[in-house]
Amino acid sequence: MKHIDVKEIISSKEFIGQEITICGWVRTSRNSKSVAFVEVNDGTSLKNVQVVVEKGESDYKEPRVGMALKVTGTVVEGRNNTVEINAVPEGITVLGDAPTDYPLQKKGHTLEFLRTIPHLRGRTNTFNAVWRVRSVLAAAIHEYFQTHNYVYVNTPLITGSDCEGAGEMFQVTTIGYSNDYKNEEDYYTNDFFGRKAGLSVSGQLEGEMAATAMGKIYTFGPSFRAENSNTPKHLAEFWHVEPEVAFAELNDVIEIAEDMLKHVIRTLLDKCPDEVAFFDAHFEKGLRARLEELISHDFGRVTYTEAIELLKNSGENFVYPVEWGCDLQTEHERYLSEKVFKKAVFVTDYPKEIKSFYMKQNPDGKTVAAVDLLVPGVGEIIGGSEREADYDKLIAAMNERNMNLDLYSDYLDLRKFGTVPHGGFGLGFERLIMYTTGMANIRDVILFPRTVGSIR
Amino acid sequence: MKHIDVKEIISSKEFIGQEITICGWVRTSRNSKSVAFVEVNDGTSLKNVQVVVEKGESDYKEPRVGMALKVTGTVVEGRNNTVEINAVPEGITVLGDAPTDYPLQKKGHTLEFLRTIPHLRGRTNTFNAVWRVRSVLAAAIHEYFQTHNYVYVNTPLITGSDCEGAGEMFQVTTIGYSNDYKNEEDYYTNDFFGRKAGLSVSGQLEGEMAATAMGKIYTFGPSFRAENSNTPKHLAEFWHVEPEVAFAELNDVIEIAEDMLKHVIRTLLDKCPDEVAFFDAHFEKGLRARLEELISHDFGRVTYTEAIELLKNSGENFVYPVEWGCDLQTEHERYLSEKVFKKAVFVTDYPKEIKSFYMKQNPDGKTVAAVDLLVPGVGEIIGGSEREADYDKLIAAMNERNMNLDLYSDYLDLRKFGTVPHGGFGLGFERLIMYTTGMANIRDVILFPRTVGSIR
Repeated sequence: MKHIDVKEIISSKEFIGQEITICGWVRTSRNSKSVAFVEVNDGTSLKNVQVVVEKGESDYKEPRVGMALKVTGTVVEGRNNTVEINAVPEGITVLGDAPTDYPLQKKGHTLEFLRTIPHLRGRTNTFNAVWRVRSVLAAAIHEYFQTHNYVYVNTPLITGSDCEGAGEMFQVTTIGYSNDYKNEEDYYTNDFFGRKAGLSVSGQLEGEMAATAMGKIYTFGPSFRAENSNTPKHLAEFWHVEPEVAFAELNDVIEIAEDMLKHVIRTLLDKCPDEVAFFDAHFEKGLRARLEELISHDFGRVTYTEAIELLKNSGENFVYPVEWGCDLQTEHERYLSEKVFKKAVFVTDYPKEIKSFYMKQNPDGKTVAAVDLLVPGVGEIIGGSEREADYDKLIAAMNERNMNLDLYSDYLDLRKFGTVPHGGFGLGFERLIMYTTGMANIRDVILFPRTVGSIR
Repeated sequence: MKHIDVKEIISSKEFIGQEITICGWVRTSRNSKSVAFVEVNDGTSLKNVQVVVEKGESDYKEPRVGMALKVTGTVVEGRNNTVEINAVPEGITVLGDAPTDYPLQKKGHTLEFLRTIPHLRGRTNTFNAVWRVRSVLAAAIHEYFQTHNYVYVNTPLITGSDCEGAGEMFQVTTIGYSNDYKNEEDYYTNDFFGRKAGLSVSGQLEGEMAATAMGKIYTFGPSFRAENSNTPKHLAEFWHVEPEVAFAELNDVIEIAEDMLKHVIRTLLDKCPDEVAFFDAHFEKGLRARLEELISHDFGRVTYTEAIELLKNSGENFVYPVEWGCDLQTEHERYLSEKVFKKAVFVTDYPKEIKSFYMKQNPDGKTVAAVDLLVPGVGEIIGGSEREADYDKLIAAMNERNMNLDLYSDYLDLRKFGTVPHGGFGLGFERLIMYTTGMANIRDVILFPRTVGSIR
């Protein structure tokens, strides 16, 4: 079907005076004596295009909201520097009907209601904007890494090991419910992979294997967490960006994270001004100013030990008490970025007891070369570290945690064969979308959210 | 660690005369009386950079293959229009040792052997080239769709339904082996999602939901098939590109597939000349010419019915006999593209019995608006269709296949609310990499292949 995207029509003046064809769905329709106005949207743009129908002597039947139309008409200049399409009834073809009980009439709907129709909610302004921002952010992430000599790798989703030695994993099986096996070993030996298999919670360990071959790599794919937590910030299936860089120390990891995040947000502001304005107006006042502020300053830096002192001396009444050794809670993270630094801030060098086995052990014997990036309004958005490159120190850390070294022999090989300083970080993609749109529930930034008990 | 990527050093003359620092792993080392030559590679480039060590009076210890070095020296012009680095022993720091039994000594290794060390094989020329081609192809796919107003969407991987109503699916569970449940219903009711769940074999159905909101979308993510087939062409976990376009008929789908594939291959030839030359020399003679040929012609078109006549009149002795109604086998597909058309060819309008329920039914009552793209040397690389947009016809096709309509109510809604002509196709990403590199086994184009019984 030869036609032109609505986005192309409304974003330039080049079509003015031309007869063109568009397709799209009716968003609103108004009818008067001699003229009718139909707002049509084909999904390629947040903004509709207005079709002005000169009814003349024809038999004009007003289209219902949700109907799909094909319209051939002439592009003309509209009011307020817009373009619109002049058509006659004969130039309008109904491609698909919509009943009067079409769920998306022009009145506003709550996000809760729209969550009950995930297959249709993309037809609203809100989700049109969210899905486009998601896509533009993803493309900006690829662009950043590709132009900096990173290789995009796809680490495995089905895995035999568990990255963090913790966290609830999903199992993957072709057996499922069965009473045909005499014991657990018999069951898994007969399963598809001949052993117990699960869904990956992180591609980091395989990312390290790739980085110590290709130098600089990034992953961008799904990760899975079978956490039984029903919160606005957790999904059982989410998308994960995990760069990993050879010949990089903690400071390099921090520089990359800051540079990447600024590039991505700058790209969003450039490419999605309408969408950012929409979220600013309807979801978070001041969003655009906040994002512009973020990219216009160097991010702050503070060690965990300094941060603990700042929090203890703050005079604030935190719900969770602060002592050296404790994990930072969202209230602490937000206080640091919003009240103390008033900008994005990297917190580094956490106590080794609250961080993972693979993080580089600092000379003080107490902390590891970890980093979290805290941003105003959200808290942690990125977590990373330099990795322990020393074979003996890594083994010691794994033994302290009673890990099964046999499962990690490939990973340990990296420390035997030309080991190098290296590091990386993880970015939860949906968290970034929430941060850049002001959407408060993670279920509203992914097409079909998967959470405990919910798989529509 | 401040240093410059080897790729940057060797791909321009701008560093000549400058003192710079590189990092990398030793690929080869030669030692003579006063000078030593060390080939160093940091993974960012297929080509190494040569470090020329002026030994002088110093105590020079020859580095072993696989060791990681940091080298500070002066960039100079080498022979044959190359650049190399002049250094003295004091400018060389060993970052990481490698033992004499490091598995990748400089002699060549078989692909079979390298499959036993997937965590290290990226350090060979072959896999350095494959992983870079994979990354460049992925970026070119994103670039194509992003610049044509498509929205990148992430369809769910964990799913409650099965796209094709066929194909072996993996189950996803947090229970796995257990004798604690009295029956199947009890087991799945108590599972994480409260019902039986599996890994998606295709994002198409959700892609249609997104396309009828955003107009033009594409997915690029993993799909899973629990097929018990150990072949060089099948993976249990593979990456899948699935564009879906509203207001598109079969002919539009064909045009998009041809345009996208040509863009992607043109980008590869532009960005990876060294890698393509490497595969041409070592894996498939004439590879570059074949790819250039492909993008320089319009792809052919033939209907299935015409193709059957061509095959029947070919005089060839096919292993699988040809009759109208049969599925085309690889031998038939290759004959059509290699002998008859001598180029890529779209075969359209297949018998409805051998295709899926969602394909648009043609007026002849016998065929559907399906399309497969066949390419010389491989056979089918893309499969797609216009989708059935008519509610009643779709219901009839599903009833013919005894499908449970209740599981598809969201999908059927698309035909009730502003239904439009639409279509799309699927591209198996690993098949594309095999086609563009000449690698013959799909296990050699993905980092950690998952196949039946194998999950290292």
